[in-house]
Amino acid sequence: MRTFRLVIACPDRVGIVAKVSNFLASYNGWITEASHHSDNLSGWFFMRHEIRADSLPFGLDAFREAFAPIAEEFSMTWRITDTEQKKRVVLMASRESHCLADLLHRWHSDELDCRIACVISNHDDLRSMVEWHGIPYYHVPVNPQDKEPAFAEVSRLVKHHEADVVVLARYMQILPPELCREYAHQVINIHHSFLPSFVGAKPYHQASLRGVKLIGATCHYVTEELDAGPIIEQDVVRVSHSDSIEDMVRFGRDVEKMVLARGLRYHLEDRVLVHGNKTVVF
Amino acid sequence: MRTFRLVIACPDRVGIVAKVSNFLASYNGWITEASHHSDNLSGWFFMRHEIRADSLPFGLDAFREAFAPIAEEFSMTWRITDTEQKKRVVLMASRESHCLADLLHRWHSDELDCRIACVISNHDDLRSMVEWHGIPYYHVPVNPQDKEPAFAEVSRLVKHHEADVVVLARYMQILPPELCREYAHQVINIHHSFLPSFVGAKPYHQASLRGVKLIGATCHYVTEELDAGPIIEQDVVRVSHSDSIEDMVRFGRDVEKMVLARGLRYHLEDRVLVHGNKTVVF
Amino acid sequence: MRTFRLVIACPDRVGIVAKVSNFLASYNGWITEASHHSDNLSGWFFMRHEIRADSLPFGLDAFREAFAPIAEEFSMTWRITDTEQKKRVVLMASRESHCLADLLHRWHSDELDCRIACVISNHDDLRSMVEWHGIPYYHVPVNPQDKEPAFAEVSRLVKHHEADVVVLARYMQILPPELCREYAHQVINIHHSFLPSFVGAKPYHQASLRGVKLIGATCHYVTEELDAGPIIEQDVVRVSHSDSIEDMVRFGRDVEKMVLARGLRYHLEDRVLVHGNKTVVF
Amino acid sequence: MRTFRLVIACPDRVGIVAKVSNFLASYNGWITEASHHSDNLSGWFFMRHEIRADSLPFGLDAFREAFAPIAEEFSMTWRITDTEQKKRVVLMASRESHCLADLLHRWHSDELDCRIACVISNHDDLRSMVEWHGIPYYHVPVNPQDKEPAFAEVSRLVKHHEADVVVLARYMQILPPELCREYAHQVINIHHSFLPSFVGAKPYHQASLRGVKLIGATCHYVTEELDAGPIIEQDVVRVSHSDSIEDMVRFGRDVEKMVLARGLRYHLEDRVLVHGNKTVVF
Repeated sequence: MRTFRLVIACPDRVGIVAKVSNFLASYNGWITEASHHSDNLSGWFFMRHEIRADSLPFGLDAFREAFAPIAEEFSMTWRITDTEQKKRVVLMASRESHCLADLLHRWHSDELDCRIACVISNHDDLRSMVEWHGIPYYHVPVNPQDKEPAFAEVSRLVKHHEADVVVLARYMQILPPELCREYAHQVINIHHSFLPSFVGAKPYHQASLRGVKLIGATCHYVTEELDAGPIIEQDVVRVSHSDSIEDMVRFGRDVEKMVLARGLRYHLEDRVLVHGNKTVVF
Repeated sequence: MRTFRLVIACPDRVGIVAKVSNFLASYNGWITEASHHSDNLSGWFFMRHEIRADSLPFGLDAFREAFAPIAEEFSMTWRITDTEQKKRVVLMASRESHCLADLLHRWHSDELDCRIACVISNHDDLRSMVEWHGIPYYHVPVNPQDKEPAFAEVSRLVKHHEADVVVLARYMQILPPELCREYAHQVINIHHSFLPSFVGAKPYHQASLRGVKLIGATCHYVTEELDAGPIIEQDVVRVSHSDSIEDMVRFGRDVEKMVLARGLRYHLEDRVLVHGNKTVVF
Repeated sequence: MRTFRLVIACPDRVGIVAKVSNFLASYNGWITEASHHSDNLSGWFFMRHEIRADSLPFGLDAFREAFAPIAEEFSMTWRITDTEQKKRVVLMASRESHCLADLLHRWHSDELDCRIACVISNHDDLRSMVEWHGIPYYHVPVNPQDKEPAFAEVSRLVKHHEADVVVLARYMQILPPELCREYAHQVINIHHSFLPSFVGAKPYHQASLRGVKLIGATCHYVTEELDAGPIIEQDVVRVSHSDSIEDMVRFGRDVEKMVLARGLRYHLEDRVLVHGNKTVVF
Repeated sequence: MRTFRLVIACPDRVGIVAKVSNFLASYNGWITEASHHSDNLSGWFFMRHEIRADSLPFGLDAFREAFAPIAEEFSMTWRITDTEQKKRVVLMASRESHCLADLLHRWHSDELDCRIACVISNHDDLRSMVEWHGIPYYHVPVNPQDKEPAFAEVSRLVKHHEADVVVLARYMQILPPELCREYAHQVINIHHSFLPSFVGAKPYHQASLRGVKLIGATCHYVTEELDAGPIIEQDVVRVSHSDSIEDMVRFGRDVEKMVLARGLRYHLEDRVLVHGNKTVVF
């Protein structure tokens, strides 16, 4: 069923819900899902509506025009999206295939509602798997001594493919700050630890050294500061003294792919609202 | 903070949210929490608002009068409650103390927002623990050959203490049908299995026999059919071949008390809406 | 690292561990993993050792000969396996690809230590995915009016490929009793519910109807009685009133594939000992 | 059933299990539980046996004498304990009662197999609750300007009560280094975060600020470095944007008390072996 998704953030005050739901009701809009959140600490209000497209008498442009006065009145940051305009996803990977294979299969079996524009990798290992899915594969090697040309090419490809969202599916390279800024809240990373524990390289080794009894994974938006962006989703799995680092890596793969798939899904469904360095996930 | 809780269920159609939020906005009602659910299968709509009492110009009675026309227009089943009118809880227990002790401690440390009117038990074992909390304890033995006098006394005590909700905290006796009917959706039980598995007696023994790898607990409203009422909350814990039935019973106690405490809390906060044999838990 | 796995079940009595560990020590066997379990209810003892192959002066045949007297003395049911002799797996699937794709990827990325002999399906949908992995695909349609020829062909293929284990990766057909008997404790099924709840068809619909708050999946050995065989592994995921049956099916897919992958791994690593209708999983 | 617990750590080499199990078998010792762990990284071996006391012809002293040569041969760090000699526990608490009440109830209902020697608190709030259980309560206020006298008194009380283990059940004061050293691996703390995230004060506030999606608790041995000692047990619970810090504190309480109770139980049952800054928990 085609729906419109109306996503709003604004300073909290009386009457927001009434105004918005009146607006929708006045056009006979059929709400299939509605979520609200008042953040007491920040005094901010968040809202997401999913509305049957066929219940409304107009399309996105007319909706935007009609809604603009309300948005202005309440100083809203807002967007409306149409499920028929699928988001364009660029996937980036390195040598490890588990997250990439998982996302490709979910897309292939119609579980992820998006277009996968292309896959970019600093290695050529996963080409055949990607191309079997009918998706273009770009091998962009990164020269450790001079990474700039590679990231210029990555940037060109992301633009060329008109990416709405870039997913670092265990890409293992740090994106340059200007790319992070340009695609703020549009680049999703999976970090293989339960952040803020074990930032940076080799988190499973760090976890083993500290002797933790649970290991985890964190899906977050990429910001200039490494592994410090707004968290979308996390999960953990139990480990014990009998698990080697290799076991942890193996258990971790399952958590990583589940957490990344959930986080990406929330993003694709316009369920994630970023406020400061935190997220509201409806 | 004192709030009113407005809880609504009605056939789904366009305009319900608009009507209700307009009503609240027209009185300057400050909504601190709002939840909605459209059930596609049943065509039913559910809604819960929490509103700051001090933002409204009137009390419960005036609210009820003012809201009645809307309720009628949309054929609503509805209620409004005031957090200052704490619900009166009657706890029932048998010999095992873990659920009772857990609930008493939560109440004692101001975590459970209710009055505990009294404890009724078919044994006298837990009297001292209950009385230390300053709560009346009634020992009502149940004669297996003739249970009627006991349940007549239970019924009398429940009425006498004007119970809003009765909690079977491992009471281990089956309530008579007429009591179930009279207090429909007001009697909460904790069953020591992950229902619908292992209905009835000795569920941990049943679980051990079947060789399950997780055991659980289920908090549900009591109906005339044993262990078949609407489920409020469930949880599980992992077990293995190395766990004896005694171990399962011990692990199970922790799940039971957590699940019962969560279920009761949801009920006390008017978060549970029953529809048919299922619950919406906001 | 190549290891031998010695797996033993026998009536419990004093001296078993001493005898077995003496035997291993007398040949300088380097134990990398050892697990024991005494079942008090049945009076049975279970044991699994993993021994470095290069620490022993002989191969499997000589081991078997040398160990036979001990096995006889203690009335052991036992086996010893060599990690270099990879088990041969026949996968069976229907139209849904998630479990199959998950197992194939784990095998492809060297996570599952086995040979995949072939895939048998009653539909032709998944051929291309399977053949990309270089694995033979057999389409054996099942005629609902006369299933016998199909299962004769299935039986022939399983024999022809010398399967050590058959995995029903959402095969959706009930195997005939004689096949269950012939391959007792060698056919692994994934059932899409938390057994013993919701045996049989459409468990997610049954779960939705009952209003459970967690749904699950169960990996078990297939026996003649439907969904009643020894359970190897189970897990659950939380659902709420807001999840439709389609959502449950989607959440369930993730649990199914994780539980099946874990269960199969335990089996491949000789970690599962069946006793009566229960399993010991070391 | 009375058992002896034999707990061993030593450099790994061939023949340890054989030697130990031979020793036990030669005295007809009935092993009810046996656990082994070879740590590949450190080359260390760990072992725990539980043996029916009535199956052995001698008591602890004779056992120690007979076993000493084996211990010496393999350079073992080892201990043997008798379940009839219950460990003496000193509980320390501050104002928050949830962990203390939980442990007291578990002890009161015979779930925790120990003696509770006394409770020490820097406040007098929990006296009545403790004394109802028939346990001495010592109020030892801590002067923030001069903490030494308080800790001298704490140290005296711990000695006087011959504590085998001290449990900081949300004590909220940092023990002086000399006490940490004197009772190395005998002081158990519950920290209200998933360490190593959020060391130090107000971890739930830190967690809220970082926007994590799970919060946790960690039970660990106290060392001189704050919140950095060997971890015994951890767990987490899911939170969302809709949970305030107060909600996190409330959810956290349940995790804290469960994790502390499990960690203490493992310690009391001699299941925890410390090696470096990590634990083996059998």
